Amino acid sequence: MSHNTFGHLFRVTTWGESHGPALGCVVDGCPPGLTLDEGWIQGFLDKRRPGTSRFVTQRQEADLVKILSGVFEDERTGGPVTTGTPISLMIENTDQRSKDYREIRDRYRPGHADYAYDAKYGVRDYRGGGRSSARETAARVAAGAVARRVLGEAVVIRGAVVQIGPHMIDPESWDWNETQNNPFWCPDANMAAQWEAFLDQTRKAGSSAGAIVEVHASGIPAGWGAPVYGKLDAELAGAMMSINAVKGIEIGAGFAAASMSGEENADEMRAGNDGPTFLKNNNGGVAGGISTGQDVVVRIAIKPTSSILNEVRSVTRDGAEVDVRTVGRHDPCVGIRAVPVAEAMMACVLADAKLRHRGQTGR
Amino acid sequence: MSHNTFGHLFRVTTWGESHGPALGCVVDGCPPGLTLDEGWIQGFLDKRRPGTSRFVTQRQEADLVKILSGVFEDERTGGPVTTGTPISLMIENTDQRSKDYREIRDRYRPGHADYAYDAKYGVRDYRGGGRSSARETAARVAAGAVARRVLGEAVVIRGAVVQIGPHMIDPESWDWNETQNNPFWCPDANMAAQWEAFLDQTRKAGSSAGAIVEVHASGIPAGWGAPVYGKLDAELAGAMMSINAVKGIEIGAGFAAASMSGEENADEMRAGNDGPTFLKNNNGGVAGGISTGQDVVVRIAIKPTSSILNEVRSVTRDGAEVDVRTVGRHDPCVGIRAVPVAEAMMACVLADAKLRHRGQTGR
Amino acid sequence: MSHNTFGHLFRVTTWGESHGPALGCVVDGCPPGLTLDEGWIQGFLDKRRPGTSRFVTQRQEADLVKILSGVFEDERTGGPVTTGTPISLMIENTDQRSKDYREIRDRYRPGHADYAYDAKYGVRDYRGGGRSSARETAARVAAGAVARRVLGEAVVIRGAVVQIGPHMIDPESWDWNETQNNPFWCPDANMAAQWEAFLDQTRKAGSSAGAIVEVHASGIPAGWGAPVYGKLDAELAGAMMSINAVKGIEIGAGFAAASMSGEENADEMRAGNDGPTFLKNNNGGVAGGISTGQDVVVRIAIKPTSSILNEVRSVTRDGAEVDVRTVGRHDPCVGIRAVPVAEAMMACVLADAKLRHRGQTGR
Amino acid sequence: MSHNTFGHLFRVTTWGESHGPALGCVVDGCPPGLTLDEGWIQGFLDKRRPGTSRFVTQRQEADLVKILSGVFEDERTGGPVTTGTPISLMIENTDQRSKDYREIRDRYRPGHADYAYDAKYGVRDYRGGGRSSARETAARVAAGAVARRVLGEAVVIRGAVVQIGPHMIDPESWDWNETQNNPFWCPDANMAAQWEAFLDQTRKAGSSAGAIVEVHASGIPAGWGAPVYGKLDAELAGAMMSINAVKGIEIGAGFAAASMSGEENADEMRAGNDGPTFLKNNNGGVAGGISTGQDVVVRIAIKPTSSILNEVRSVTRDGAEVDVRTVGRHDPCVGIRAVPVAEAMMACVLADAKLRHRGQTGR
Repeated sequence: MSHNTFGHLFRVTTWGESHGPALGCVVDGCPPGLTLDEGWIQGFLDKRRPGTSRFVTQRQEADLVKILSGVFEDERTGGPVTTGTPISLMIENTDQRSKDYREIRDRYRPGHADYAYDAKYGVRDYRGGGRSSARETAARVAAGAVARRVLGEAVVIRGAVVQIGPHMIDPESWDWNETQNNPFWCPDANMAAQWEAFLDQTRKAGSSAGAIVEVHASGIPAGWGAPVYGKLDAELAGAMMSINAVKGIEIGAGFAAASMSGEENADEMRAGNDGPTFLKNNNGGVAGGISTGQDVVVRIAIKPTSSILNEVRSVTRDGAEVDVRTVGRHDPCVGIRAVPVAEAMMACVLADAKLRHRGQTGR
Repeated sequence: MSHNTFGHLFRVTTWGESHGPALGCVVDGCPPGLTLDEGWIQGFLDKRRPGTSRFVTQRQEADLVKILSGVFEDERTGGPVTTGTPISLMIENTDQRSKDYREIRDRYRPGHADYAYDAKYGVRDYRGGGRSSARETAARVAAGAVARRVLGEAVVIRGAVVQIGPHMIDPESWDWNETQNNPFWCPDANMAAQWEAFLDQTRKAGSSAGAIVEVHASGIPAGWGAPVYGKLDAELAGAMMSINAVKGIEIGAGFAAASMSGEENADEMRAGNDGPTFLKNNNGGVAGGISTGQDVVVRIAIKPTSSILNEVRSVTRDGAEVDVRTVGRHDPCVGIRAVPVAEAMMACVLADAKLRHRGQTGR
Repeated sequence: MSHNTFGHLFRVTTWGESHGPALGCVVDGCPPGLTLDEGWIQGFLDKRRPGTSRFVTQRQEADLVKILSGVFEDERTGGPVTTGTPISLMIENTDQRSKDYREIRDRYRPGHADYAYDAKYGVRDYRGGGRSSARETAARVAAGAVARRVLGEAVVIRGAVVQIGPHMIDPESWDWNETQNNPFWCPDANMAAQWEAFLDQTRKAGSSAGAIVEVHASGIPAGWGAPVYGKLDAELAGAMMSINAVKGIEIGAGFAAASMSGEENADEMRAGNDGPTFLKNNNGGVAGGISTGQDVVVRIAIKPTSSILNEVRSVTRDGAEVDVRTVGRHDPCVGIRAVPVAEAMMACVLADAKLRHRGQTGR
Repeated sequence: MSHNTFGHLFRVTTWGESHGPALGCVVDGCPPGLTLDEGWIQGFLDKRRPGTSRFVTQRQEADLVKILSGVFEDERTGGPVTTGTPISLMIENTDQRSKDYREIRDRYRPGHADYAYDAKYGVRDYRGGGRSSARETAARVAAGAVARRVLGEAVVIRGAVVQIGPHMIDPESWDWNETQNNPFWCPDANMAAQWEAFLDQTRKAGSSAGAIVEVHASGIPAGWGAPVYGKLDAELAGAMMSINAVKGIEIGAGFAAASMSGEENADEMRAGNDGPTFLKNNNGGVAGGISTGQDVVVRIAIKPTSSILNEVRSVTRDGAEVDVRTVGRHDPCVGIRAVPVAEAMMACVLADAKLRHRGQTGR
């Protein structure tokens, strides 16, 4: 995790701005011999693609990925497999209406990275946030698709939106299949209907809404992770917090654990066929920074989109006071499109942990 | 952040087990010429030391730090200053009653790292958790004391416990001075009295309690942090989550941001004397992964101590079902002693960010 | 230096195969505000370009670089400057005659990476060496052009070929200007004529020749480098040895120092206007891993091109014995085109050292 | 390789000055379950220990190593094994005659790091070179002993001195057993006698001599190493160049390859029982940055000790011109004690490469 590179053995370096010619990533350290083609990656990008419903940005981006290196024909099947060398993935930007941004060129949008970038670099790509734009996350999704190949089919990673604005799902009604039936990745059919009304209202009011996303990974064997600064949960926390607009991260019981007694919180164990069986999962699948074999369960809080039509008070680069409203095309709730991104970060962290565990222990 | 090393330019490597002869850390990359002696570091270790009240573990450890390298006499003052080379710090373990742990040698304590470590390594130092013990955090506190020297006096880092069990302080009653007047680092005098009763009860019941700790850093200039995987908040999240028993981390408004509208969440700006003034701090001092000049505000959730006197169901290494209770000497609420640890991690992350920012930009 | 990433604060990640659609690099951590356009980078690529004389490969590659990210208009001048975010550079491959390589698909070329790659990965891009091709070095040259911007005009880096085959230049005849007058970067006009004859003969004989390249960097202040594993000479050694076909690296007096006495070797010092003046430079500009203010002088040994027309004994992937000759288009002496590559690696190492030194010390 | 940390998965961080209370290292990422006790490590330290003959420094240091963490009783054998957590090793300094160094406090010794350290840090531990002293290499030897456990008995690493001053051994007379029979690690009995006379003369003349050391590693399978910046030879070059006083590094034919033709240089292959057999080893066991299964063969050039009794011209910290002679106790030829150090660096690089290869490929 330094600058724009993420991971140790399975390493992802991303690049690109919102309104430049393209964005992409280099995935390095991938094991050789894994089947990989553009179609597999595209499937995940399509889940994140803008313009798929009225609840996400109307920017039209095909987000077509090209594999530029690191994949070659398998000598037996002739099909494309990873070679073990860097996999370069590129997505061209096609719908860059930079002119939309001229008016915010000299003013800082509250909640955005505008002022902080300017204070750091002294030069700023004002077009749609430049590097700080959520478009960067397309590269993460592409990398995550590669990571899933590293993890193999035994590991299943899937995410859901569990809260939009103040409206939380009923955990008792959780149905993973339901996440495919609505534009919100909502696992609770009743709540999906409420969100639809709520977000329509939000959108019409020129406002935006926050969300909470939950990601589960199952099929993780016990033993992944590396104490004490390479803890699996520490790396997940860093990875998730690096996603645009994320302001909080929990694992397992998370903040609720603070209110529990030691007995309530303890994930008691019973004998199982293949190692212990846990009676609860307050740990969220990680103890002492190492996976336990339980599902890894992470929740992230996403703030409401900072780009809103309503005016908020701000200042210009020259220090004059102004009111700012952001036209452009924006997600009323970026939390929705964060689902494939959070899944991708989970996949990347786990793929890296798998390889490092194998390196150290040979298992 | 890999294995047991943390940071990029300001790097901390910790080592040591709960019941080995000693523990310590190597702090590498420290700027030269900073005043540093054992007394300065000891002051912070004393804040974390066990046995200071009935609400923390009764283990008796002087936790005396020795500087083994990296400090030499200043040619002008003759006083000790950093030389820019690795600073090796060692703390000897003096009160290691390993025999307390014989009975848990072959059984996994729920909530502890016992099973996960065994699954990973196949060999386990069962004495007090070995490497997974919270004793490791003494080394973090020592490193954090060095980091504070890097940050200088303009940066003030301080933490408080804001919740123990289900009992939350009243934010309106926050008084930093109050944190020095009670054994809980509680900024709310009324709540401190309630916690005293609650924890006495918890302790007598052989149970334990969770907590929430909040850490503030002020005096941070705008511009520190490095998008997109080296974001300041991403590094804080990873650093905080790497502390034992932490299950959640928030920055600024955190999970509450999910329920806000874009307008409510926006940290509006007005013209200030030295850059913009922010009217709120929902960002927690970080936007787009880069510091804004606002206070950096982080909250972490700490689960209740897993070592409890009450029996919980578990299994042995051989897969037999057992009931486990942990005698030994333990913190009824590890969240209390987490305050100086969380402050130290904040200091280490910020010191590293300062040096990296200076490296890239020259400022 | 891990996998395909090089550097700490100034970091370069390269990707791409000899016969894939493109190759390139991501330069991360570059300071903001530096003037950078494609023309500047292209100038250095043109020095390395194939097909410029009969002494280098006849492959026709324009090697046109595109900047895909990390550069934006300066608000004052409107000209392109670095933004401090990742600079993605891409060079498309245009003259990929993959069919030339069909016949070596199943046989290992001695001296090449063929067998080692196959043993490591089990899958191999046989087209021109794939990732192990010297085409990868185009990306290094592009990154080196960016590094030169970081170093500024006060730092001058230039290289020369000082030996081809057994024919060594006369150091007394060294004239930097001469390196621009012959196709060998030879600083000794007499020797250039001899090399022409020697290489014509080598080429006609279907053979190849080795070389020694020397690179000088002047204008480096004392103080860059970081003991003990980040020593400036250690990083230079690693960087240079990572260039294809390099088998040895010396700094300053290098191997000759082994035969000297302590007195002969000592770089004696006299008082100068701005720090000490050194009477010799056996150190090669580095003492204790830290720059001394002397010129940094490095020499590298480059083995003869392994791709030769003459038959050599080898085996197939199936273990059958064969004789192998390599048709394709190859450099009779790869040492010539190694000059801009070695300069680029020098630039990258120094740029990284500059930023790290500034980070740690503020100077 | 950054600052004082070396390696990726098998990571070594060293600390300590020549005349501080102690020096040591932290070895992180070691596989669990490997037999390790102080006796094993001590055996290698004893090979490097000062005072063993009149040809090395007469400083008396027992160099006794203590294991402070990372090793615990094996549950089956009860013997000490690695736990997979950081192994902290400490060696106390016992014979620190700092007063010897008072006179060089304000003057820079030519060839030493004195001036460069001062220029970098502005504060300098003048006692025996402080951090730049060759005493730091004791920590490397200790780490190398751990690395040998990672490599196992199939890998054999051994070094020899092949040249002292201008006197080179006869490669035809190479006998590994002979290296145990003389105080020079010389594999050629005749040359050992010559070196004895030469070094006695050198010592009496108050001078010093350089040397060349060669290290071989056998039993390395094909496939270790990671292109293109993590190449096995690049990492070896960096590791070896980081050893005090090393000025050059070669692999295989090294600089001699520059004079060869492509045919001469090619390591031709024939069918073998277990992969190809190579007819030569000009590669030095590495092709394209990846091990080939041949012996890995590295040579390093070590300059003559800079600490000499004879006067050399220099300057003081204040810029006044002085003549400097170094009394103290020094090696007339540091190349001799470099043998166990170079072996250790070879072991560390290979151990790291083994773990990373296993991580990426599962083999």
